[in-house]
Amino acid sequence: MNAHDAVQLFAKTLDNLEKWMDKAEAHAKDRSFDVDVLVQARLAPDQYAFVRQVQATCDQAKYAAAYLSGKPAPSHPDTEQTFPELRERIRKCVSFLTTVSEKDFAGADERKVAPPWLGGRWLRGEDYLVHMAIPNFFFHATMAYAILRHNGVALGKMDFIGSFPTQEG
Amino acid sequence: MNAHDAVQLFAKTLDNLEKWMDKAEAHAKDRSFDVDVLVQARLAPDQYAFVRQVQATCDQAKYAAAYLSGKPAPSHPDTEQTFPELRERIRKCVSFLTTVSEKDFAGADERKVAPPWLGGRWLRGEDYLVHMAIPNFFFHATMAYAILRHNGVALGKMDFIGSFPTQEG
Repeated sequence: MNAHDAVQLFAKTLDNLEKWMDKAEAHAKDRSFDVDVLVQARLAPDQYAFVRQVQATCDQAKYAAAYLSGKPAPSHPDTEQTFPELRERIRKCVSFLTTVSEKDFAGADERKVAPPWLGGRWLRGEDYLVHMAIPNFFFHATMAYAILRHNGVALGKMDFIGSFPTQEG
Repeated sequence: MNAHDAVQLFAKTLDNLEKWMDKAEAHAKDRSFDVDVLVQARLAPDQYAFVRQVQATCDQAKYAAAYLSGKPAPSHPDTEQTFPELRERIRKCVSFLTTVSEKDFAGADERKVAPPWLGGRWLRGEDYLVHMAIPNFFFHATMAYAILRHNGVALGKMDFIGSFPTQEG
């Protein structure tokens, strides 16, 4: 799996996340509560709420695409407070991901990735993908899913995985 | 990231999982409850409990190593009921992962992966890694983490990520 495959996987998973939100909306309607209550839901008082998990999922994908291609990451301020705003955030992120082509990721494995929080140190592009981007992305995506699941949304594993390319014969 | 890198990442994350369990044990001791209560903890009544999340995390890693190398997967029956038994399960899994060498994964991308639940269909090895093994592994690892977090264990993101190879200069 190269950087381009990883970013495609992130884009697919962000599409899946929107479908979990569809199910959350149907659940809220069915139970007559305002779905935006879930925006502030969390699993522990000192943990990111759903809104921040979605923002972090998007940002892990965005920065992976930017750092590994050398393209600048667009600014997406964390201002969302509703489901429609979170959907818009996801769409903006996926749109950016689709602008980064396979060719843009040439040499990604050996790129120097120096996020500001590393304070001057850096990771090889491949190490960043393996040790940071992939675990972090799936961490936040799963936490977003877990918060909805904990609040009664009827999600199952195949909602998490989404489509996958099988072969016959 | 090739199949070998992915399996190494799974092994590292399973080592991290044992450290989350260390923190759970310290928390239980501090609060004077039996840590094995957490074995059956879950986030929703129809969701896998902690025990099953740990077993599934191990199995995703085990089957990825087996399917992508062509080595038979050892049988690890789901009999664990305590923290020490779950640690033993993790150790057995990681031991198996370390027996599969980089050479064993030669040609992994093009291997036919046909898990029984696909009912005769199959995935290319690389598609299996990208679309099934990686998302599934991190899904269950994060759920195990989330269940502990929800029950008051003081875990932070760096506990999830563990060590990573930075460079200087």
